[in-house]
Amino acid sequence: MSHTVEILSVGTELLLGGIVNSDAQALSRELSGLGLNVLYHSVVGDNPERVKAAAELARSRADVLVTTGGLGPTCDDLTKQALAEAFGKKLVFHPECAQNIRCFFARVGREMTENNLQQAWLPEGCHVLDNAWGTAPGCAFEAEGTYVVMLPGPPSECLPMFRERALPWLARLSEGVIRSRTLRVFGAGESAVESLLRERMNELENPTLAPYAKEGEVELRITAKAPTAEEADALIAPVEREVRALLGELVYGADVSGLAQVALDGLRNRGLTLGTAESCTGGFIAKRITDVPGAASVFKGGVVSYHCEVKAGVLGVSQALLDEKSAVCAEVAREMAQGARKVLGCDLAVSSTGVAGPDPDDRGNPVGLVYTALAAPDGCWVKKLNLASLSARRDRTRNLAVNHALDMVRRWLEGLDPAGMDAAGADD
Amino acid sequence: MSHTVEILSVGTELLLGGIVNSDAQALSRELSGLGLNVLYHSVVGDNPERVKAAAELARSRADVLVTTGGLGPTCDDLTKQALAEAFGKKLVFHPECAQNIRCFFARVGREMTENNLQQAWLPEGCHVLDNAWGTAPGCAFEAEGTYVVMLPGPPSECLPMFRERALPWLARLSEGVIRSRTLRVFGAGESAVESLLRERMNELENPTLAPYAKEGEVELRITAKAPTAEEADALIAPVEREVRALLGELVYGADVSGLAQVALDGLRNRGLTLGTAESCTGGFIAKRITDVPGAASVFKGGVVSYHCEVKAGVLGVSQALLDEKSAVCAEVAREMAQGARKVLGCDLAVSSTGVAGPDPDDRGNPVGLVYTALAAPDGCWVKKLNLASLSARRDRTRNLAVNHALDMVRRWLEGLDPAGMDAAGADD
Repeated sequence: MSHTVEILSVGTELLLGGIVNSDAQALSRELSGLGLNVLYHSVVGDNPERVKAAAELARSRADVLVTTGGLGPTCDDLTKQALAEAFGKKLVFHPECAQNIRCFFARVGREMTENNLQQAWLPEGCHVLDNAWGTAPGCAFEAEGTYVVMLPGPPSECLPMFRERALPWLARLSEGVIRSRTLRVFGAGESAVESLLRERMNELENPTLAPYAKEGEVELRITAKAPTAEEADALIAPVEREVRALLGELVYGADVSGLAQVALDGLRNRGLTLGTAESCTGGFIAKRITDVPGAASVFKGGVVSYHCEVKAGVLGVSQALLDEKSAVCAEVAREMAQGARKVLGCDLAVSSTGVAGPDPDDRGNPVGLVYTALAAPDGCWVKKLNLASLSARRDRTRNLAVNHALDMVRRWLEGLDPAGMDAAGADD
Repeated sequence: MSHTVEILSVGTELLLGGIVNSDAQALSRELSGLGLNVLYHSVVGDNPERVKAAAELARSRADVLVTTGGLGPTCDDLTKQALAEAFGKKLVFHPECAQNIRCFFARVGREMTENNLQQAWLPEGCHVLDNAWGTAPGCAFEAEGTYVVMLPGPPSECLPMFRERALPWLARLSEGVIRSRTLRVFGAGESAVESLLRERMNELENPTLAPYAKEGEVELRITAKAPTAEEADALIAPVEREVRALLGELVYGADVSGLAQVALDGLRNRGLTLGTAESCTGGFIAKRITDVPGAASVFKGGVVSYHCEVKAGVLGVSQALLDEKSAVCAEVAREMAQGARKVLGCDLAVSSTGVAGPDPDDRGNPVGLVYTALAAPDGCWVKKLNLASLSARRDRTRNLAVNHALDMVRRWLEGLDPAGMDAAGADD
């Protein structure tokens, strides 16, 4: 019987809509990955009575309570006070926490005001979760059968605190070791992937197999529980083989950050460089590539040829072709990629040209019609995409076009037809 | 006494962490803007008992309940069933809804399966919220003093449904008319803006003045309530003047979508074109510009000169300069912008060069050191930025650099010194 979890987030800013509750999302993924069953999220403002009532409600309907926010000096350590009351605990001064807070300020070269030391008051008997990413320490304790973990609110502190500090403490709740592996899938929508795998997903218990839709992609997470890491990995391996056999070239990586990372790693291993030539994606391909730290070892640069005169003048696309066929056609995509290879002096180049919307172009090409091309030393390939959908949005169309362009590089690296495969977008 | 609100989101996907609860954020802003007091967010999975229990809890602690998700055929209209039970209502068939659903499918050219018609069953006596952005209609009703609004989950449907359909119905809860105006502020952190305005924010009751931090920006929303729109606007105007007088050139617009929009609109009005030359932002400036529909009337294109040979070869930056000073210096930023003007044939060009991190560059330049430049017909300006912060993140550094580059265009358009002003980033 797996443990049930409530995530309680404290912060008036969340209720005003100033920020989105990304902590709840990130922690939900982590906790689900541990095999725990997240049943509730709740958010209350910076109000001691409501925080206390929410904690009491949570303990009545879940056996693990994870809180985020309301720590730290600016909110008077609201969450700690309220939870200490709800669970009948006293707050006591932890000198070693005070010392850590002093060290943190010394390390970042800022002066510490005295109110920061208030953060060193934590529930008696708790396990302290030291904060290396900010000042407010978290804590964890068990009280009458409820496991409580308190984390700071800023996402840049909350997630590392969970992974590095809370997770080892929570491991007690899952007997044995939990391991997971995430397969990344591009080129089919979630519902298509699900319909291929539904039966197996329902059958499997250990490991479990679960899909997560991301815009234009699907992640498949295989999670196994076993006495040791080796045994867990041994449970995962045959399911991974099975999924790969079913989905074939749709699987582009395992435990990777995304298509850009896979393309960059593959090119780096082969000592090859990359460039871009973008029209409808308007710099988005280059942006996605340079989101990856260390992209400079592979990515030389790109040309955003939004106007036709830049396509002709900088990339050398034929003016006659542009006049005759307009910018949205396979030939222009091809000449853009080939031009980028030459102008930028790179081994491979990808290009995009199409109609991002919201309106059709002046030649009547529909929103979502996009051509992506890949120019490589051994040839040039063009893919025609129809990215229109029920909820056609400019950002979605552009994002999908970027994915397709990057996937062409990935497929070339794997020796597959870069323009192969059905070019359907993800489903809605 | 203002009404209190709970937002209840239904969806197992939220509890698994597959998606973030952006509906709750968007609705919180809208509801707060109406003068309603959002006290709770809660999330439960696709489970009829838990949805019903959550609805009963919500009615006990708030007088307005807004639900998102759990409508539509794939989830068996879970939320409608559970709420109908919780509020003792029957579901009845609404033929006009069935007709709308049929029309929607005809309009988008897809075949309708019969299970879609199940969506036409809604609580008896409810006010139907017709869905022009998807298939599942929403509804609104009052039951024993609780006002209930049910909206679909997909963000592309939820927010327009709220604004276009639910808002007129909810208007009864706020006596008179509520109007708001949002001033956009760039160049100072939230805490600096707050400390300038704190006293006034606390004093003001109608209109209210509230800050919202966005990454690298601050929004200030002035909200007034009055019997008529004219009277509300008349209450807003003097507060807007007061804020503008206090913050001066930090205010870059009112009721606009962002810096890119302001820069593009200003250039379009003057008949001028824009180009980009990017190193550390790697296409992100061009991406932000082309996020704006209609950017093509102003934006000609850009060069992403990630490698120095592209800076020299395509943009014409002096090789001797690159050899001597490396790519991260004011002179290179200047030559990049000037080169882009020439190569792209545009009136204005902005550039960026710097260290996005996570590591310092090979000349020892620290993470967060960025130069942005603006080349215009009447001169060229360079801004040196130190975007380092406690939580230095590559995406944050790059995003701030983009904002600074776009703000140089905005300042030039307003006749201000484009490189003027303290180049401090937003605070953490």
